[in-house]
Amino acid sequence: MKKVLFGGLLLLTSLGFSQSNDEQMLQSIYKTALTNSQCYSWLDDLSNKVGQRLSGSEGAQKGVLYTKQQLEALGLDRVFLQEVMVPKWVRGDMETAYIIDAKTKIKVPICALGGSIATPKSGITAEVIEVHSLKELETLGEANIKGKIVFFNRPMEPDNIDTFLSYSRCGDQRYAGAAEAAKFGAIATIVRSLNLRLDDFPHTGATSYGSLPKSQYIPAAAISTNGAELLSKKLKENPKLTFFFKQSCQLFEDVLSYNVIGEIKGSVHPEKIMVVSGHLDSWDLADGSHDDGAGCVQSMAVLELFKKLNYQPKNTIRVVLYMNEENGGRGGKQYEAESKRNNENHIFAVESDAGGFTPRGFSLECDDANFAKVKSWVPLFEPYLIHLFVKGYTGADIHPLTSEKIVKAGLRPDSQRYFDHHHAANDTFDAINKRELELGAATMASLVYLFDQYGID
Amino acid sequence: MKKVLFGGLLLLTSLGFSQSNDEQMLQSIYKTALTNSQCYSWLDDLSNKVGQRLSGSEGAQKGVLYTKQQLEALGLDRVFLQEVMVPKWVRGDMETAYIIDAKTKIKVPICALGGSIATPKSGITAEVIEVHSLKELETLGEANIKGKIVFFNRPMEPDNIDTFLSYSRCGDQRYAGAAEAAKFGAIATIVRSLNLRLDDFPHTGATSYGSLPKSQYIPAAAISTNGAELLSKKLKENPKLTFFFKQSCQLFEDVLSYNVIGEIKGSVHPEKIMVVSGHLDSWDLADGSHDDGAGCVQSMAVLELFKKLNYQPKNTIRVVLYMNEENGGRGGKQYEAESKRNNENHIFAVESDAGGFTPRGFSLECDDANFAKVKSWVPLFEPYLIHLFVKGYTGADIHPLTSEKIVKAGLRPDSQRYFDHHHAANDTFDAINKRELELGAATMASLVYLFDQYGID
Repeated sequence: MKKVLFGGLLLLTSLGFSQSNDEQMLQSIYKTALTNSQCYSWLDDLSNKVGQRLSGSEGAQKGVLYTKQQLEALGLDRVFLQEVMVPKWVRGDMETAYIIDAKTKIKVPICALGGSIATPKSGITAEVIEVHSLKELETLGEANIKGKIVFFNRPMEPDNIDTFLSYSRCGDQRYAGAAEAAKFGAIATIVRSLNLRLDDFPHTGATSYGSLPKSQYIPAAAISTNGAELLSKKLKENPKLTFFFKQSCQLFEDVLSYNVIGEIKGSVHPEKIMVVSGHLDSWDLADGSHDDGAGCVQSMAVLELFKKLNYQPKNTIRVVLYMNEENGGRGGKQYEAESKRNNENHIFAVESDAGGFTPRGFSLECDDANFAKVKSWVPLFEPYLIHLFVKGYTGADIHPLTSEKIVKAGLRPDSQRYFDHHHAANDTFDAINKRELELGAATMASLVYLFDQYGID
Repeated sequence: MKKVLFGGLLLLTSLGFSQSNDEQMLQSIYKTALTNSQCYSWLDDLSNKVGQRLSGSEGAQKGVLYTKQQLEALGLDRVFLQEVMVPKWVRGDMETAYIIDAKTKIKVPICALGGSIATPKSGITAEVIEVHSLKELETLGEANIKGKIVFFNRPMEPDNIDTFLSYSRCGDQRYAGAAEAAKFGAIATIVRSLNLRLDDFPHTGATSYGSLPKSQYIPAAAISTNGAELLSKKLKENPKLTFFFKQSCQLFEDVLSYNVIGEIKGSVHPEKIMVVSGHLDSWDLADGSHDDGAGCVQSMAVLELFKKLNYQPKNTIRVVLYMNEENGGRGGKQYEAESKRNNENHIFAVESDAGGFTPRGFSLECDDANFAKVKSWVPLFEPYLIHLFVKGYTGADIHPLTSEKIVKAGLRPDSQRYFDHHHAANDTFDAINKRELELGAATMASLVYLFDQYGID
């Protein structure tokens, strides 16, 4: 309190002191994350003991119980489950597919797209028409499409530095391809996997029949990039070849599941809530270590780090592990509905759902004043090679959140390897680097700490 | 030429024009690297067809011939081999090692350190003394060390963001441990692998006996990090346990090898030379995809990209693939000696020898004026997420280069995963991501282009 006496000098001194406090806090956060966090072992458990966590599955329920238990062990002020009804789609038997040419029958790797209907039990065999966009369907028209399998083969653009941009520019084939092709009489669709690499993993992901009448639904599957290259080559040699595939997936009634939530009550503004989050569900082909086991354990680690550093947040810090991001987004919507019903005031939300790779920074949805505030913190992040602060889309699960004033952030890790694993059988724990994962957790904790200290404008 | 008429306005216009030219050129470089470079397939060949390339080995000679052939196929102005005498150290049979306790004999993964002598044919069995630094040897003294195996077990610090810093702070155990321990009567040394991760790969690397008389040389090996943890734990339970190991490595007479060099002659200043480089030799346990196959193919790709983009450099751009960085650095020294003899004028040299991971920027050895120049280019690199430009050590092979004025640069990729693979049996092609590798090549080409355009101050 002596400093008050120094007037003008005080401002500099206390700013200097404050800055140095922040520097020290970030240093402690990063050091603790790299030396004394359960982040990596949690993910090991979630990937290798719990396993795949598709909404409505036994694995998802195991994931709910495991993470709730781990949050309880942290000694938080409150841990609870939030009910949410989720779709239950089940793959059934593994899919089989062949390219059938005059003399040959070549097996290719495919998988049903999430939400797709099954083929008849005996499978589907038909000629194939290769297209590169939804628009091309119109050009070709029913005359060229009816009775055939539509093969969407537009590759992800390799020359975007941000691979999510390439993903978003190709996603329509997977998401809307089946519904659009059905309108022109296609009997099924095969979509090139959304993967920048040439390999043998088919990548699943949600497809939607939109407003199509149920009677017009057609089966939709993804083919590996190597499979797509081969099919395309074979079609050039023989446009009359046929393609066979069989899948037995099924959509059941909605079932009860949960968002997993834990919080440290704010010491100054307990009514102001800051969310750190990832999604607990995964696709069923692997254990979803990157998508999004990583985001879950990083979010849990933010609260763990604060606890270990004896940091008493001013605001309530709440970890939310959403259910059903992959095929419905029900968890995010339910969380927002409950939040509205309870008149909760969210001032901040961060989501990690872009893989557990080396963090580069954040995308932000906020006004200019708060963006300028974040920019003023850039020097604090420099020692940790965190340099990317851009306005942009933050995340699917925090997207529905609509408090009067809220800053949203999306962790932006290095994206070069993400789509090698995304929604495929190789999204497994061995593809995770411990340090990269921990650095992501520390980076989230640092941004949460700074907004907790300085509030939003 | 009309622009000359506008006087003052010209400066702005032409600066603007030039800036836009540079932006376009970098865009073309990155796009071509990501869509149309042989970088990745060269590395596939170098890793999977050529294989390990330890100096003096058949593999190294195959690497020389392969890269020379590939450079010739690029249609450069000149491709040649530069003779260099290199040490020939051969591992011999794979090593074996056991922790021998009263009742148990546990096999642990070790490998001879490069340059070490063999054990007797029947191996060495002795008690073990664990130490954490060279200094600790003095404290313990001959009384505690004589007749024992010294086990250096200081781990790499996990909390440095730059993992090379952790490496440099631990390297003395491997490089000088045997020579220092021998002075106190140790009969062998076992060094914890320089790896941040706990796994079962022993990591080799050079050790030096310094000025020790040959008669006092003792065998030196690395033990995997899991092995080191186990040995340390067992020693706590029973300080009298023994350790057995056997290795049959041998140092032969120096043999003739080569630096591989190719160049595009400068169109304006053919006498001014800009070097892009990596080292062709690797350790023998794997194919050295990251260390430093990646640096070689990235350097080759710089010239490939200029050729593909029809870029006529003002200065001579020379790719140098050095031999023997790992256990002697003879290639770098020989290159400098030849350069001095020929009165060559090097204005710039860049080296890539930190793995084929996502590039973050460069370390630079240069004066303030040239550093400021580089800093002025930062906005050009921003779209490619290249943000790190720091003064600091650049690389072992360009270190000897001493032209009157020279700017040196070291490519700085993300370093989090590097020491998982460095000098170990898992430094293999499957650990390379195509895009990350290509982005490194583009980043090097971009810096070379800018210095070629604007010269050094």
